Amino acid sequence: MVERIDQLYNGAVKIIQSDEVFSFSLDAVLLADFTRVGPHYQVVDLCAGNGAVGLFLSRKTRGPITLVEIQQKLADMAQRSVDLNQLTSQVKVENIDLKNAPQTLGDDFADVVTCNPPYFVDHETSIKNPNPYYAIARHEITTNLDEVLTVSAKLLKTNGHLYLVHRPERLDEIILGLQTHRFAPKKMRFVYPKAGREANMVLIEAIKDGRPNGVRILPPLIVYEENNEYTASVKKILFGEEER
Amino acid sequence: MVERIDQLYNGAVKIIQSDEVFSFSLDAVLLADFTRVGPHYQVVDLCAGNGAVGLFLSRKTRGPITLVEIQQKLADMAQRSVDLNQLTSQVKVENIDLKNAPQTLGDDFADVVTCNPPYFVDHETSIKNPNPYYAIARHEITTNLDEVLTVSAKLLKTNGHLYLVHRPERLDEIILGLQTHRFAPKKMRFVYPKAGREANMVLIEAIKDGRPNGVRILPPLIVYEENNEYTASVKKILFGEEER
Repeated sequence: MVERIDQLYNGAVKIIQSDEVFSFSLDAVLLADFTRVGPHYQVVDLCAGNGAVGLFLSRKTRGPITLVEIQQKLADMAQRSVDLNQLTSQVKVENIDLKNAPQTLGDDFADVVTCNPPYFVDHETSIKNPNPYYAIARHEITTNLDEVLTVSAKLLKTNGHLYLVHRPERLDEIILGLQTHRFAPKKMRFVYPKAGREANMVLIEAIKDGRPNGVRILPPLIVYEENNEYTASVKKILFGEEER
Repeated sequence: MVERIDQLYNGAVKIIQSDEVFSFSLDAVLLADFTRVGPHYQVVDLCAGNGAVGLFLSRKTRGPITLVEIQQKLADMAQRSVDLNQLTSQVKVENIDLKNAPQTLGDDFADVVTCNPPYFVDHETSIKNPNPYYAIARHEITTNLDEVLTVSAKLLKTNGHLYLVHRPERLDEIILGLQTHRFAPKKMRFVYPKAGREANMVLIEAIKDGRPNGVRILPPLIVYEENNEYTASVKKILFGEEER
């Protein structure tokens, strides 16, 4: 397998990637940026892939971070990235199906759960990527939104925070699902590819057993300028320094 | 009662207003701009106030428009504005409680329902405006979100469109309520007072018996420049020409 090492935050985080299995995308970077973590929070990242979100979050907290990834090859890459960044004392990789995470880690375990889940419903007629790694990352084949919310609700302490990145077209299902699983949405940020275009991503913060009707819609985030360069806001997220 | 005549769209629409009862705000203008109407649509505006939304919509369709307003003084002002704009053959004012609108107008009556409802839950402890006209327009005293959705679902034909303007903090309740009343949200546009600020308004299009998971988030609308002038986008909506 051809691998490479990508860097983020001016080289502060190194991530082992391979286009043959899956590479993290801007979604993971924005999710990590959107996530608020205290200095000693217990953090769990579901659908961790090659560990991007968890590795990025290691710069925002000294608390323990658990990466849950079902695919062995990706979990292995995540573990080697953890080693490469000398984060073995902070970041743990669990190569398990996320539905077993509460059993493995414990109920009411986490202060924060993050998840960059597969975005697309696995209809029989869905056109899926022939590469199974990509297919599983993009389509709801090994898990789905309802299972992610079920597991997150178990893992989180009361008033624990869930951070999701997802597609805006499923916003109605996401909000109904959050309510079903005792979450109240608290903050949303819509991400637009360019000015004047419709949003293609939404970042959501929800609180377990939180109070309804307190949704805050953060300022819009535009990704690209008209000339296809990243906007200043995105450059700051990608290359700027984050407080730890 | 001190009244004045305000104009919109470079004088194309005149509206009788009085600060003693209630004046239309940008919310009504943006709701009318957001609403899509065919040339012969049957349109009903609930919580019509002094008729602003319906009067604005008269420029976008030749179809009949019914304004439903419970407060006699406001319904009377709306009627006089209809007369002033020579729209008596197109726009009808019904001075009734909206809960009686389906009985008066008929079930499956409308292609489009619009509503700029009171935004705030009427808690016993709510600080309400001592002016009852303002209190009723702002707080859910004579109606509430659930009743607006109940009535809209009755008034609309299958696949009819509901257009709402509301506060983003109630987005979770709005989406749950839409589902309860067989609506699927289709389009949302968030309105931000200034760049870098949180949204303080949301425009929502929902379809009666529509399919879920097809939400489109339109480009953000920023109202004011840093110098407190309206942005070019808002100026275009306020003063620009709309196709009829």
